[in-house]
Amino acid sequence: MDTLEELKTLLGQVSDLEAAAALLSWDQETHMPPAAASVRGLQVATVASLAHERFTTPRIEELLCGLEAQPAESGTVEEALVRVTRRDYDRATKIPTEFVEEKARAENEAHHAWLAARKNDDFRSFEPHLEKMFDLARRYADLVGFDDHPYDALLDDYEPGARAAEVKRIFAGLRDETLPLLQAIVAAGDATDYGVLTREFDVDRQRRFALEVAEDLGLKGEFSRLDISAHPFQTNFSRNDIRITTRFDAHYFPMSLFGTWHETGHGMYEHGVAAELARTPLSRGASLGVHESQSRMFENLIGRSRPFWQHYFPHFQAVFPEALEGIDAEMLYKAVNRVQPSLIRVEADEVTYNFHIMLRFELELAVLEGTLNVSELPEAWNAKMEQYLGVTPRSNAEGVLQDIHWSAGLIGYFPTYSLGNLLSVQLLEAAKAQDSAIEPGLRSGQYGPLLAWLQHHVHRHGRTLTPRELTERATGRSLSAEPYVRYLREKYQDIYALPQTALQP
Amino acid sequence: MDTLEELKTLLGQVSDLEAAAALLSWDQETHMPPAAASVRGLQVATVASLAHERFTTPRIEELLCGLEAQPAESGTVEEALVRVTRRDYDRATKIPTEFVEEKARAENEAHHAWLAARKNDDFRSFEPHLEKMFDLARRYADLVGFDDHPYDALLDDYEPGARAAEVKRIFAGLRDETLPLLQAIVAAGDATDYGVLTREFDVDRQRRFALEVAEDLGLKGEFSRLDISAHPFQTNFSRNDIRITTRFDAHYFPMSLFGTWHETGHGMYEHGVAAELARTPLSRGASLGVHESQSRMFENLIGRSRPFWQHYFPHFQAVFPEALEGIDAEMLYKAVNRVQPSLIRVEADEVTYNFHIMLRFELELAVLEGTLNVSELPEAWNAKMEQYLGVTPRSNAEGVLQDIHWSAGLIGYFPTYSLGNLLSVQLLEAAKAQDSAIEPGLRSGQYGPLLAWLQHHVHRHGRTLTPRELTERATGRSLSAEPYVRYLREKYQDIYALPQTALQP
Repeated sequence: MDTLEELKTLLGQVSDLEAAAALLSWDQETHMPPAAASVRGLQVATVASLAHERFTTPRIEELLCGLEAQPAESGTVEEALVRVTRRDYDRATKIPTEFVEEKARAENEAHHAWLAARKNDDFRSFEPHLEKMFDLARRYADLVGFDDHPYDALLDDYEPGARAAEVKRIFAGLRDETLPLLQAIVAAGDATDYGVLTREFDVDRQRRFALEVAEDLGLKGEFSRLDISAHPFQTNFSRNDIRITTRFDAHYFPMSLFGTWHETGHGMYEHGVAAELARTPLSRGASLGVHESQSRMFENLIGRSRPFWQHYFPHFQAVFPEALEGIDAEMLYKAVNRVQPSLIRVEADEVTYNFHIMLRFELELAVLEGTLNVSELPEAWNAKMEQYLGVTPRSNAEGVLQDIHWSAGLIGYFPTYSLGNLLSVQLLEAAKAQDSAIEPGLRSGQYGPLLAWLQHHVHRHGRTLTPRELTERATGRSLSAEPYVRYLREKYQDIYALPQTALQP
Repeated sequence: MDTLEELKTLLGQVSDLEAAAALLSWDQETHMPPAAASVRGLQVATVASLAHERFTTPRIEELLCGLEAQPAESGTVEEALVRVTRRDYDRATKIPTEFVEEKARAENEAHHAWLAARKNDDFRSFEPHLEKMFDLARRYADLVGFDDHPYDALLDDYEPGARAAEVKRIFAGLRDETLPLLQAIVAAGDATDYGVLTREFDVDRQRRFALEVAEDLGLKGEFSRLDISAHPFQTNFSRNDIRITTRFDAHYFPMSLFGTWHETGHGMYEHGVAAELARTPLSRGASLGVHESQSRMFENLIGRSRPFWQHYFPHFQAVFPEALEGIDAEMLYKAVNRVQPSLIRVEADEVTYNFHIMLRFELELAVLEGTLNVSELPEAWNAKMEQYLGVTPRSNAEGVLQDIHWSAGLIGYFPTYSLGNLLSVQLLEAAKAQDSAIEPGLRSGQYGPLLAWLQHHVHRHGRTLTPRELTERATGRSLSAEPYVRYLREKYQDIYALPQTALQP
């Protein structure tokens, strides 16, 4: 077997173990009987740890050295495979197997502690676990190393090449430009009657409608399925085995509909990765930020657009004739774009969402820098909520305990949501400018042209391009808050009939 | 870490990998999108092969030698763990990893070829795969070794300690005693009107009724779930994570009901293994035969008994009032015990079932002994069907291609079904004799006393006892066809009102 083939064989085994670990986790969230939880935690930990062990075997180093001695041509899959595998290998070999196991066990315990703490609104019972998570994050950053800030080491896992200082700069501009818009919207009052949002929509029919649109968006049952979980997510075990989840509320249909289309965006990205990259480290999205650009594009730029509801409203009305009594497409469009400062990130609208992210980013930085203790997080959280959104959680359950991320050791992860929001608009602007069939397609539920553009400029590349390379090649420039801010201004000035002057910072 | 703890840690990792492989397979049969099949085959092969590799590491040999040098007291878990691990290790180390991988790949290909061949009634397209399966079986037998017959090496994987010669002897008695009974039943004609079996029973309500009874039989949703698959099976990923599957036919309710209770028996066995054996090689059923004794007890000895239907009929009627119009408990009891020589093993009744097994056992022996070619199997199959049951398949799809087993490399497996049938009656006789609360419980849907007896005498032991030890301790003698033959005579003489004289061989 030649060097490249042997490397691919070993990486294929690692990929298979990672798929097995992902399936164990998916099953845990969707179908597993409750009494199985404790053993399942051990199983996930073992399989993840063996994947790590298998990937960090010295043989990989030998094979990489052999391939690096005779570098493949730039732009080839082989060159990307060696480069990305080297990156992952160097990061992974800095992490001892014992640390990986300790982290997996601690995360499993923290996850269960978080579930109980959120249920009982009892931050103190979660606090030692959260201390442990930040402690593990600090140790992890030290193990992999960093130039400027330990946060960079964490962020780099989710957004390769991104730096805390750059995120700070982009977020500062975003904050300064969005705050006056938010204030103008709050001052303007309601744009329509929002009562339709809480009318009763049969959940079986919600499921049917959500899936019909998801299929129009490209997600076919041949290579995907939708299940129910407490927290919606996308995972996959190969590009033809996409699993998305959602949750249903008969009295709040936006949750399942926009949630399904959000995960559809993630799923279409993973399905669109070139088949030749399968079972290698190249066969997934370039970063969480690029991933989020796809989910947000489907959920918001398409799903919450006026053309979308002008097209789908008649069918939506046919599925829910009673619930939509007295409602037209325009009212629905305005209702699903209600802007309202609120406590819960996952329920936030396009204008306020990024403030939830900035808050978390700033708190993570402060704890890592040692200027804030974990025990002080609830108060610091609430103070920032008041500062940015003018609302204060009545409990930690709807404050600092609301997200699963920290209990899962995901520190440095939150900024990618906002980076994805920004990128979604930058990509869609570029796509429309480059292919004149895309805009008419969005008006008629014909997503083929847009999908083809995304497939060509984003999906197929997998991890062969960095987020920066991908962004610059697809849009002609690096990531900026400017297109997103412009998108928000145009959309919400119209919906809330705002005076032009109100929008300047 | 001391020697025993290190062994348990390594065995725990193997157990976790096996659970992951089992979940990949369960998902493949129940939920996986169709386009994922080819990559899934690779994933199952990789994880199964890594489990094998992990189990056959020389460190296990060192640890076993250390523990064997200072043997634990007989009857302790430690003694059983060392003994059973040694048995498995010696068998496994005789099989090279490459052979395991080749077998897994060939089985995956054979499985897909069998699906297509059965669908198209095209034995010739499956023949090379079946040749390969018998070839692998022969090579496997040579690798693990045997004293008398290569079949023993295969059988021993499923029924530790069993031998082909012993099975031949038991089957000969069973055949000679059952054939006159079957002939008398066929001569007697119908015992009742069987029309109820093909009336329409709503599948959602079938599911509900099947699960309600399964719960009475001890299978709680807390540690189990029921899904749909083309071929019903039980699998599990820990004793608190039991998965059973069934299939539904609106016009043949016995399939889902008795199928569910059959798998419930398997599931209760695995759930009942002592918790202290978890994540070790001791933590599953003693053999397939003992397993089948539990599933057949639930399906047939309980589910097809007169007391069962006398107890459940009113509820069954409440769930299906239209379908059961004009039917009473006695008619239903007789209908679900229809004896009818037929072509398909999984649809066979208690009297004819074992003939389907004897046929397969004899054909497997003949192919392994070289007295029959794989290409001659269809004709040999049909000839034996005519000889034993007086029926001839009209196609290979309902003949030699009907079972999944050979395509999955399961040669030497079939006899365990009949051994389980025999053991089920031998165990239930012993249970009733030892605890007088069991028989009244069976009349009133109170399965607690029987479950407690099974838990104590069968389930909790896992693999700490061999099938022979378990049988002798629980019933006071080794396995015999005599109780089963007596059970059949008493039950069917009554149902078919047979003259006493008709039953002698």
